[in-house]
Parts: sequence; C-alpha cells; structure tokens
Amino acid sequence: MAKAITLLESTRPDHRLRADEVLNAILPKSGQSFRLGISGVPGVGKSTFIEALGLYLISKGHRVAVLAIDPSSTVSGGSILGDKTRMEFLSVNEKAFIRPTPSSGNLGGVAEKTREAMLVAEAAGHDVVIVETVGVGQSETAVANMTDMFVLLQLPNAGDDLQAIKKGVMELADLVVINKVDLDPDAATRAQVQIMGSLRLFSMHGNPEHAHHDETLWHPKVIRMSALKSEGITEFWDTVNIFKDIQTKHGHLALRRKQQAQAWMWERIEAGLRQNFKANAQVQKLLPELSEAVNQGTMAASVAARRLLDLMK
Amino acid sequence: MAKAITLLESTRPDHRLRADEVLNAILPKSGQSFRLGISGVPGVGKSTFIEALGLYLISKGHRVAVLAIDPSSTVSGGSILGDKTRMEFLSVNEKAFIRPTPSSGNLGGVAEKTREAMLVAEAAGHDVVIVETVGVGQSETAVANMTDMFVLLQLPNAGDDLQAIKKGVMELADLVVINKVDLDPDAATRAQVQIMGSLRLFSMHGNPEHAHHDETLWHPKVIRMSALKSEGITEFWDTVNIFKDIQTKHGHLALRRKQQAQAWMWERIEAGLRQNFKANAQVQKLLPELSEAVNQGTMAASVAARRLLDLMK
Repeated sequence: MAKAITLLESTRPDHRLRADEVLNAILPKSGQSFRLGISGVPGVGKSTFIEALGLYLISKGHRVAVLAIDPSSTVSGGSILGDKTRMEFLSVNEKAFIRPTPSSGNLGGVAEKTREAMLVAEAAGHDVVIVETVGVGQSETAVANMTDMFVLLQLPNAGDDLQAIKKGVMELADLVVINKVDLDPDAATRAQVQIMGSLRLFSMHGNPEHAHHDETLWHPKVIRMSALKSEGITEFWDTVNIFKDIQTKHGHLALRRKQQAQAWMWERIEAGLRQNFKANAQVQKLLPELSEAVNQGTMAASVAARRLLDLMK
Repeated sequence: MAKAITLLESTRPDHRLRADEVLNAILPKSGQSFRLGISGVPGVGKSTFIEALGLYLISKGHRVAVLAIDPSSTVSGGSILGDKTRMEFLSVNEKAFIRPTPSSGNLGGVAEKTREAMLVAEAAGHDVVIVETVGVGQSETAVANMTDMFVLLQLPNAGDDLQAIKKGVMELADLVVINKVDLDPDAATRAQVQIMGSLRLFSMHGNPEHAHHDETLWHPKVIRMSALKSEGITEFWDTVNIFKDIQTKHGHLALRRKQQAQAWMWERIEAGLRQNFKANAQVQKLLPELSEAVNQGTMAASVAARRLLDLMK
C-alpha cells in the first residue's frame, strides 16, 4: 500500500504511466469508505481527537486511514502533519494506516496526491478515511471537496468562530465540534450558543452553492467534547452516522462525490493547461518582456494575454 | 467614447484586432483617474449615493465616469445596473459618463470589458471613475481588484455585517459607509460600533494577502451618511482623499495597480487557455465520454484530466 502511494506520488513520467494503470485497477475497489474531513487551527487538539476517534473506530471493527493536507509542509520541506509520533497508539495499530502530507509544491498537487492515496487506502480495505488539515490557505476547501463530511474543530473560546466565518470555513462545516471542553465548560457553552447562531444565519442567508448538504435535510450541529478525556467520541460518531444515513438515503452522498470528481477533473485540467503554457518555449521567451510592459503600463493586460495566447496556437 | 467602448465590447475577431490597437493607443493617456469601487446589497441606496457623490464631484470641477459590474444581467439579458433612469440628474450632466454593465456571458468577461471601458473613460479625461456592483457571486472581488479604493455600503442594521463578513467582502473594504442613517440613527450607531469591532479583529487576524492596503498606514474607517439628504458626502470625499494621499505617498497606489494588472493578465491567460481547450475538436469528441466515466466512478478524475491534456500536445 505504501509502495502504491509512493508510485502515485512520483513525478517521473514513466512512473506516472504505471501509476495511472494502478489507479484504474484499484478504482472498482475504492469508494467504499466514509470520508471524513477534519480541520482546526493548531492547538485545537486535532491529533488527540483523531487518535481517540481512530482507536474507538478500530474497537468497533473498522479499519482507519489517516491522511493529511498541509500545503505549508511543501515550503518547510518536511511534513508536520500526519507525523506518526503525534498519534502514538494509533500509529502502531495494524488496523490503522497513517500517511503524512505529500510534498508536491502546491495545494493542487498535494490535494491530487491525497485523493489518490485515499483511493488506495479504500481499495486496501480501510472503511473510514480521515483527511486532516491545519487550515493553511485554501486547504480546508480542498479537504471539504474530497470528503463526505467536513468537521470543524473549535476551541471553547467565544469569538474564535469569527475567524472561521471570515475564512469561509464555518460555511463548509457539516458539523462543528467544540473540543477541550474540560478547559472551560462555561466558555464552551457560550461558544456553542454563538456558533449555533452563526450557523442559523448562514442557513437563512447562505449561498446554496457553498452548502455541501441540503439544508432542508441537515442543519449543521454543534457538539462538545474532550478528546483528551475521551469524552464525547461516541456522541460524535453517532452524529456522523446520522448525517451519513440522511445523505445516503436521499442520494446526496453519491451526488456530492460525482460533483467532487467533476470539479477535481477540471481543477487538474486547468493546472495542466497552466503548466503547458508556462513550459512553452515561445511563451518563456516573450513573457518577461510583456509582463514588464504590463507592469510599466505601456501595454494593457488583456492585450498582453492575447499575444501570449496566440503563441500557443 | 461610447463608440470606442462598443468596439472593445465586440466579439468579432476583426473588431478585436482594431480594439487592441485602440487600447494600446489610449493606454498612455489612461491611469490618471482615481478609481473608486462601490458595493452594497440592493436597497442600500447605491444609485442615490452615486448620484449625490457624482454631482458633488462635478461641482468641485471633476469629471465622473460610472461603470457597473452585474454578472446577473448576463443571465437576465438586460442590465439593471448603470441604468441612466436611476440617476436622473447625473445622467444628463455633460461632465458625467454612465455606462451600464456589459453582457459578456461570465464575470471574467464582464470584468475585462469594464476594465477596458475604464481606460477609455480615463483617456477621455474623466478623473474619477466609479465602478459599482450589486455584489452577485464574486463581483465584489472583481471590482476591488480593478479599483484604487473599495467602499462597502451598509444599512443601519446591526447584524447586516455578518453577511458581508461571511462573503469575504468586509475584508476587501478600505472604507465602510453606513447609509440611510436618517432611517434609524440609533441602529446606525450600533452598526458602526459592531463593524468597527469586526474590522479591528480582521486587522489582528486577517490574511495580509487579502488586505488591499497596508494596515500600519490605513485602518479601514466606518462613516455614517444619508445620501438621500446629501448628508455626509463631504466627509466621505475627505476620507477618500486622506486614503488616496497616504496610498500615493507610500507608493501603495502604484503597487496595487501593478499587482492588479499582473493578476488581470493571468486571469485572461487562464480564461483563454480554458476556452482553447474546450474548442479543441479532439477534446470535444472525447470529453463527454471521459466525463461520464468519471461520474460513474470507472475512471479516476486525474487520469481523465491527463488523457484530455495529452490531446492538446
């Protein structure tokens, strides 16, 4: 399994051909898991939460894969997420598979590798795939766009939600979990009330295109837990299952996956077109000059764009 | 002037060549105006505000152009924005030029035509260009990305700001104007306090990439006005001038325009690459089949994308 993923992550052209064969071969066996996206700022307790959840799910007979998207790791050169040392019990459990974030230079590339790793994990029999993200840049959107349910972890700190609202992450959430409730139960209650208010406003005024669920069937819940004390894990998983049943029953789970696959295809097409454009010898020759003319205001941006596009014909 | 804009808006290939010549010819004469973006939901009083501001500016010796971006008009087939009947005094003033939103099928196309119309208006001697938007989809971002200062109009209704925060529009604002203060002065005061609080949080936690101004030099202001009673127009224009002076003095105005021009060029390149891809005969032949395979889950989206991209080589 690790070998297959390494092959998929390779950038060598001959590897890529074999990787596509592998992908097509495993595809019929994939898709059988429930895909859970988990986001939250550093310090919210994601690792502790995922370890507690993973061990709980394994005790219930599941096999769990944990993948990660951390675009910042492509800058630092090493992954801080998915680090096995952060989940000491889950990482040594043979029913669990933990894979750190791949380093592919940009979010689109990282997301692509993570999607493919997810298919491999599913084909290998993992029936719960958790994709975590630390929430740098647009990584929450990437995770929400590859999972069946997107969960946002928040601290028991009223006001913490404004940041999530502002970044558009609250809007993506199918479920909000207030973690570390033991730290300050009163603050957790205030945060819960405030977040429920925000979510209610979203369902009234929200952009239906952004909603990942049908508001008439599911209104995002806000639950409290203490992952450190393993309190609330059962309620969390019960809530996940209620959501899953509703989504499955009304065909929304399949619909969401189809839309995700289409969006993924187009995202990769556009990335490829950009790459081919930048690799074109004539473009490479003319781009600096036209770019400078646009900077200096001696050529309109749209004229420069048309000239460069003409080189591709 | 209207003729030049009509030529620029034409989609005929021979017109496009002449249009590019026109653009290059006017470019040295453009760029001398202050570009003001105005956004606000329907009912906030944008037309009354722009009419009052426009007449005030003309009385001060300025020449004003009003352009509009309303992507929804491309669906309805007719523009509701920039409608001259909404600004009855400004529209008949010879120092003013009002142009409704162009209909070019998508936001990128509409924004392109509006940018080009802005250059024409500047070359014709208009020294204040106002670009208004009703805020459908991503149109506020488009307007913020083509103007020197982005102003958000809000109603005197505490809580109205959450919608703007959620949509990411509050974050774009260099200035927030609470209009129709006469309706409910107390509510306007509450809204002002609340919005100032939100803006303060943004400057503490905001993404510097999103900020259109340097927070150490300018912190977004919140002012109150009643455009209907022509109250607050002078304070508004004074605030605009303070912002303009700060931005000019520190080189941020020129920097913002350079970044906008670069982003515009790349946005048009990507739109062009997409268009060429969709127009490719082989792509048109294979796309429906591969798209369906992706939908059915018999082909990975990334494999389909690579197959289609190979056709472009």
